[in-house]
Amino acid sequence: MKDDAHLIETQLDTEVVFDGVLLHVSRDQVRLPNGASSLREYVTHPGAVVVLAFLPNGKLIFERQFRYPLGRVFLELPAGKIDPGEDILETAKRELLEETGHTAGRWQYLGVMHPCIGYSNERIEIFAAFDLVDHGAQALDHNEFLELVELAPAAAQEAVWSGEITDAKTITALYWLNHPSLQK
Amino acid sequence: MKDDAHLIETQLDTEVVFDGVLLHVSRDQVRLPNGASSLREYVTHPGAVVVLAFLPNGKLIFERQFRYPLGRVFLELPAGKIDPGEDILETAKRELLEETGHTAGRWQYLGVMHPCIGYSNERIEIFAAFDLVDHGAQALDHNEFLELVELAPAAAQEAVWSGEITDAKTITALYWLNHPSLQK
Repeated sequence: MKDDAHLIETQLDTEVVFDGVLLHVSRDQVRLPNGASSLREYVTHPGAVVVLAFLPNGKLIFERQFRYPLGRVFLELPAGKIDPGEDILETAKRELLEETGHTAGRWQYLGVMHPCIGYSNERIEIFAAFDLVDHGAQALDHNEFLELVELAPAAAQEAVWSGEITDAKTITALYWLNHPSLQK
Repeated sequence: MKDDAHLIETQLDTEVVFDGVLLHVSRDQVRLPNGASSLREYVTHPGAVVVLAFLPNGKLIFERQFRYPLGRVFLELPAGKIDPGEDILETAKRELLEETGHTAGRWQYLGVMHPCIGYSNERIEIFAAFDLVDHGAQALDHNEFLELVELAPAAAQEAVWSGEITDAKTITALYWLNHPSLQK
C-alpha cells in the first residue's frame, strides 16, 4: 500500500470513550498523510450477517421491525450480530432460525459490505439461503419484536424505488440478486 | 400506524451519553410493545448526501479515501454531511464542488437510504448530477484527503461483485442506476 501513503492515517493512540450497554465508541489520535495529527471517533462493532432467504415459492423472507433511532418500522432482510468467536455461516444459520423459524438446505456466501465507513468498523457478511424448511416458530431475542413478510425479488426491487425499502444493508444485499453466480 | 402497535417502541426518557468531537450518542429509555422497558443507544447524525455524478464521457466520479475505522482505502461515491439548516440539494452541490471540483448543469433527486438503522439516525439523500463542468480544483475540508477515479457504470457494477466496492451507501446509490426514471 506504499502508493496510498498520501491517503493513509496511522494510529498514535486509542481510548474507549463510551462503553455503553449496546454501543461502544473509541477515540483515536491519528497521524494524517500530511503529518498533522487529528482525532477519529468510531463505533466498535462485532460485525453482522444478512440473509437473502429464498422460499420454495421463489419469494424472499423480509421482516418488518421498528427501528428506534429512526422512529419507524423498516422492511428489511433477516440479519443479526456475530457472537464472539462464532463462524459467520453459523451466525447466518442461527439468525435465520431465530428470526424466521427456517433452516436452509443450501447456503451460498456472496460477499461483504460496510454500512457506515465514516464512523463504525461494522462489516456485514451477505449470504443466500435456499431449500428452506419452515419449523414454524421464531425464537426471538429478549426484547425483539418483528413480523415476517414474503416478497418476490421483483417486488423487492419495486419497493426500493417506491421508497418502501430504504435500509442500506437490505438494498446492498438485493444488489447481489443480479450476480451471475447466484445459484437460485 | 395503529396496526403496528405490536412493533412500536415509545420514548420514556432521553439523555446524551456521549458528546464527542465528531460523534454524539443518545441513550433512551423506551417502552417496548409488550409493556416492558428497555434501553436504546444510538448515534445522532445530521444526515448526508451521496451523488452519482456523470461525466461527459458517461463515467461516474468515484473517490478513493482512507476510512480510519476500517483501516483501509475505500472506493466510494462523493458524499458529505448536511450543514445545519442547509437544503439537501445545496449540500449535494457543495460536496460535489469541494470534493471533485465539478459543478453540474442538471440535478435529479432519486431517494433516501438509511445506512445504519440499528444504531444511528443517519439518512443519506441520493442525487444524480449531469452535464458536469470541471473547475479544476478541489476545496477539501481541513484534514480531508482523497483521490478521484473515473469508473463506467458497468465497471462499477463489476467492482461491487469483485469486492472492490463494499461501501453500502455507494452500492445503494448504484442500485438506482437501473431506475427507469434516471435521466442519463
